[in-house]
Amino acid sequence: MFAGGHATNVATVGHLFGPEDLVVHDAWIHDSTVRGCILSGARRRSFPHNDWAALDRILTGARASHRRALVVIEGAYSQDGDIPDLPRFIEVKKRHGAMLMIDEAHSIGVLGRTGRGVGEHYGTDPADVDLWMGTLSKALGSLGGYIAARRPIIEYLKFTAPLHIFSTGISPANAAAALEALRVVQDEPERVARVQELAEFFRAGARARGLDVGVSRLSAVIPVITGDWEKTMALSNSLLERGVNVMPIGYPAVPRDQCRLRFFINADHSEADLEHSLDLLV
Amino acid sequence: MFAGGHATNVATVGHLFGPEDLVVHDAWIHDSTVRGCILSGARRRSFPHNDWAALDRILTGARASHRRALVVIEGAYSQDGDIPDLPRFIEVKKRHGAMLMIDEAHSIGVLGRTGRGVGEHYGTDPADVDLWMGTLSKALGSLGGYIAARRPIIEYLKFTAPLHIFSTGISPANAAAALEALRVVQDEPERVARVQELAEFFRAGARARGLDVGVSRLSAVIPVITGDWEKTMALSNSLLERGVNVMPIGYPAVPRDQCRLRFFINADHSEADLEHSLDLLV
Repeated sequence: MFAGGHATNVATVGHLFGPEDLVVHDAWIHDSTVRGCILSGARRRSFPHNDWAALDRILTGARASHRRALVVIEGAYSQDGDIPDLPRFIEVKKRHGAMLMIDEAHSIGVLGRTGRGVGEHYGTDPADVDLWMGTLSKALGSLGGYIAARRPIIEYLKFTAPLHIFSTGISPANAAAALEALRVVQDEPERVARVQELAEFFRAGARARGLDVGVSRLSAVIPVITGDWEKTMALSNSLLERGVNVMPIGYPAVPRDQCRLRFFINADHSEADLEHSLDLLV
Repeated sequence: MFAGGHATNVATVGHLFGPEDLVVHDAWIHDSTVRGCILSGARRRSFPHNDWAALDRILTGARASHRRALVVIEGAYSQDGDIPDLPRFIEVKKRHGAMLMIDEAHSIGVLGRTGRGVGEHYGTDPADVDLWMGTLSKALGSLGGYIAARRPIIEYLKFTAPLHIFSTGISPANAAAALEALRVVQDEPERVARVQELAEFFRAGARARGLDVGVSRLSAVIPVITGDWEKTMALSNSLLERGVNVMPIGYPAVPRDQCRLRFFINADHSEADLEHSLDLLV
């Protein structure tokens, strides 16, 4: 456990890997993993979004000249709501003797029949992923980050990762909020089903209205891609005045010409809320 | 505001400085500043603890060949409870056109007549320090970190620091706890006076019993230096059994032969508590 999600990736990638290692990540990976790579001193390469064949080629060329190789992908991509073709990535990483890390910030509590994330969605053997990372600040409504991994890795991080041993732990209030949220996810799987259903409803409604939701699928992150920053800001402000709180996302989180409104669907939304929001966009 | 204190230093030093800059810090500086330096790519040098003359020599030799120079010290050193000779450091940093950052994790709420920290203790002009950094997780009993600086620096950090814009903010519960703690510090200055009085009482009592508190002065961090790790661990465990909760500190936080029990004095302790703890150590 770490006090923040961003710090979790900085701490873990920054500590487990070093200048003799290779980190290869999806081009759409979150900033926190990039900062961790820089801190580690590892050689960093990225592959085009979700392109496991490109990853395969990078590893074929570079794996042998590095001590360890780490592949980092997300369970649901934070700005686009796409999910990875996980079985393919597992096949590639195994073949090259690489480690695989999945950032489940936006997939835990949302994907899979009981909200256990992208691994449950694909029926993945948990042991096929070396570092399961997630945060408490999205579906779980608190603040913090976690790493789930084989015991020796966890023990090593607990006792030696500078950002763990020299950092204050999660606060009691945040821990209690996250624990209670986990109980809700476990006890009320209908909420997970509901958020999935509403996300599909919103995606279908957006597409029916000719809105560009990009490659969003299965997750509850649904961008409406609007183009330039001024237009996106103006739309966000005008929606707020009409009771819809949706944040504009611009550079450097996304390319300058792909600014967007990023909708997060949750289980307490209603179809009427979503219809209303979509109608305001057209 | 950042969600954690460690992340605050990583974020700020890591973002404001780059490979063309020089960061010079006290040899006893906290890990968080060191990680920030590594992330920044700046050239990093350290000077012997509190040795402003050594800092002066380093800047004389290296200042001219770097774009910016940053000096980082602590308001109260986390493992030793010493405080810096702040007026000397300000004189040196001004003479060399360097920036000065003070980590007040252990001095805010404790030093100064009203708990405003090491600057209040010395009657420093706040503008003489470029980056006032502090945390909410020590005297203020919450979790988080802050930077106080000139407005352009704050605006720049808010809108561009990756660890700020890509990180979840402080949680409502943590913010409320910290705000209430700040109100208590402001409304009840007798607590600040009390913690200072008790810290002096503990230092005097320790010395009277022949215990080694090192260079601790004025702050509420008081180590009792015990030597090797096994002895320190055993003492900590034995004190816990007798109702005294004091954490053992070992490598890499301090040198291997200077392991210690680190006492934090607070305003709710009593003289009897402190006498009892000291008696258990001899």
